Amino acid sequence: MKRRDFIKTASIGGLATTATLLAPSIAEAKAEFKWKMVTAWPKNFPGLGTNANLLAKMITEMSNGRISLKVYGANELIPAFEVFDAVSNGTAQMGHAGAYYWKGKSEATQFFSSIPFGLSGQEMNAWLYYGGGMELWREVYKPFGLIPAATGNSGTQMAGWFNREIKSMADLKGLKMRIPGLGGEALRRAGGTIVNIPGGELFTALQSGTLDATEWVGPYNDLAFGLHKAAKYYYYPGWHEPGSTIEAMINEKAFNALPKDLQQIVLVACKAANMDMLSEYTARNNQALDTLINKHKVKLLPLPDEVLKNLKKLSEEVVLELVAKDPLSKKIYASVSQFRDQVSHWSEISEQAFFKARSL
Amino acid sequence: MKRRDFIKTASIGGLATTATLLAPSIAEAKAEFKWKMVTAWPKNFPGLGTNANLLAKMITEMSNGRISLKVYGANELIPAFEVFDAVSNGTAQMGHAGAYYWKGKSEATQFFSSIPFGLSGQEMNAWLYYGGGMELWREVYKPFGLIPAATGNSGTQMAGWFNREIKSMADLKGLKMRIPGLGGEALRRAGGTIVNIPGGELFTALQSGTLDATEWVGPYNDLAFGLHKAAKYYYYPGWHEPGSTIEAMINEKAFNALPKDLQQIVLVACKAANMDMLSEYTARNNQALDTLINKHKVKLLPLPDEVLKNLKKLSEEVVLELVAKDPLSKKIYASVSQFRDQVSHWSEISEQAFFKARSL
Repeated sequence: MKRRDFIKTASIGGLATTATLLAPSIAEAKAEFKWKMVTAWPKNFPGLGTNANLLAKMITEMSNGRISLKVYGANELIPAFEVFDAVSNGTAQMGHAGAYYWKGKSEATQFFSSIPFGLSGQEMNAWLYYGGGMELWREVYKPFGLIPAATGNSGTQMAGWFNREIKSMADLKGLKMRIPGLGGEALRRAGGTIVNIPGGELFTALQSGTLDATEWVGPYNDLAFGLHKAAKYYYYPGWHEPGSTIEAMINEKAFNALPKDLQQIVLVACKAANMDMLSEYTARNNQALDTLINKHKVKLLPLPDEVLKNLKKLSEEVVLELVAKDPLSKKIYASVSQFRDQVSHWSEISEQAFFKARSL
Repeated sequence: MKRRDFIKTASIGGLATTATLLAPSIAEAKAEFKWKMVTAWPKNFPGLGTNANLLAKMITEMSNGRISLKVYGANELIPAFEVFDAVSNGTAQMGHAGAYYWKGKSEATQFFSSIPFGLSGQEMNAWLYYGGGMELWREVYKPFGLIPAATGNSGTQMAGWFNREIKSMADLKGLKMRIPGLGGEALRRAGGTIVNIPGGELFTALQSGTLDATEWVGPYNDLAFGLHKAAKYYYYPGWHEPGSTIEAMINEKAFNALPKDLQQIVLVACKAANMDMLSEYTARNNQALDTLINKHKVKLLPLPDEVLKNLKKLSEEVVLELVAKDPLSKKIYASVSQFRDQVSHWSEISEQAFFKARSL
């Protein structure tokens, strides 16, 4: 219902009667700030699109409707890869995406999603909130009039679906794989051919042989796409995306126009949504993995140590080249790599040692 | 400044001038809901007390001062172990503590902190938010007029500080150790003697030989207590508390008296504080561990597999006995143990496999 129609109805039917029936319209009518949130995902996409919905809901409810937030799926208002520009130029006030999509704007953005052999989800949040990561992220987005926030994390992803068994580095030669970002560049250096294909076309591409392999996210999202029907082997771990942060970006002018209480509501909602997503993926990946293995009899395999060791070497090469040519990336890498060195040791004697003890 | 003084000053100096200087008093004066938050920690205690402060700050700021929240350290208003009763009977509107302190009220509360060989911090949040845990927790607290929320997690703790080397189960015999809860009962069955000593007295008790060993939290909190100066060995992993949830409890009547927007603000703030604490411990444990090892030359040791395997068996025995005598515990254990079985497999091929790959 448009605002004009609502006012007309209200004046005919009497406000008291129509108020209950028209609650959503009233909420929108009384909103002091009508915001749009553009996302890089299909509307309601499990885990990602639903997190954008949750974020909008929390902000609207906590502000008692003073901010109304309309969520747009990819291509509803703008295409997925225009989220950054749309929020930067004020077409929308908020965006919901992944920072590594914007490497064309600044190479340094990639450090705020996930880097190969970098940080797990929990470690990534530790770096962002307590290791200086957020300050650096704000510095990278500032020239674009954007304020970044972490609003989710996928946790450690899977290495992907393969129609070729990977026993050694030789098996990566000529492998046609969909794998984006720095991890993709590492695989290219291992002899693979990188093919760029949108998520929705992965199933067909695997079936037709356009792809020999693809990564996507993890069991929860992969099961929904039916990728197990088009590939023979499901490999782990997700060396290329060990804990990918999902971002909310906010137009700086729109943010500054909010009173302090609403600014806090927006930022705290992002932090709560971040907790929510990692919890959701941890719980649902686990349920989906169970279904894939026990119901669909998926063949689950680890990448051999020798392959992982080589991919790690190639990944470091790729990251160091990036760092050498971009001063901002250099500064961020210094922070994140020092953090990784320390946190690796802590994770080894805490979570990792506990997981081992639990399985004895 | 008291409210009376503020009103006096304001009427003399003119509201416009004094408003800026007296902002906190104004905030308190205009609050629609003046709440007290009692905590089980010393005021401003790192990680725990500071999380209570952060939670209060977020609620006050997001509500634009409509809720004012005064935080009390242990013994300021009531002793630490009276938090549950104080919030239940309305002396305070909120509490900040650990659910396993209340096993005297209901044995089932223990499942909402941490159980030996149970869930890591991330897995615990997954169970609470997406595995049915919160619904069960609300059921346990309902008869006491309380609404529970997770507001933090310590992550995997350390096994503790020892003045006796642990090479086999025989070394646990006669060991005088401070270790509470179900883990303590498991250690007692291994031949240990459980000594109950408050945190602040651990250092002296270790030095005097009243204790042979103690667990506390992890490097960040342990370093602050100086425990490395009173014990020879620092053991890992924290099998007895692999991911302890910190709780916020809310008086149900006080919560129901809030309008919907303020109810949401309270609950979302808890979820954001939960994200904050696990991030803080992950980052700061790691820094503190570095200091302990490199500066204080602490001897860091893993508990032997044989000891962990036996403690696991004894812990299961303890939990199953609890479950056999308490129907509510039985229902919760069915949920959490099924979740653990599945999530263990997921963690093994995601985080655990990634940590291993990173260290190759």
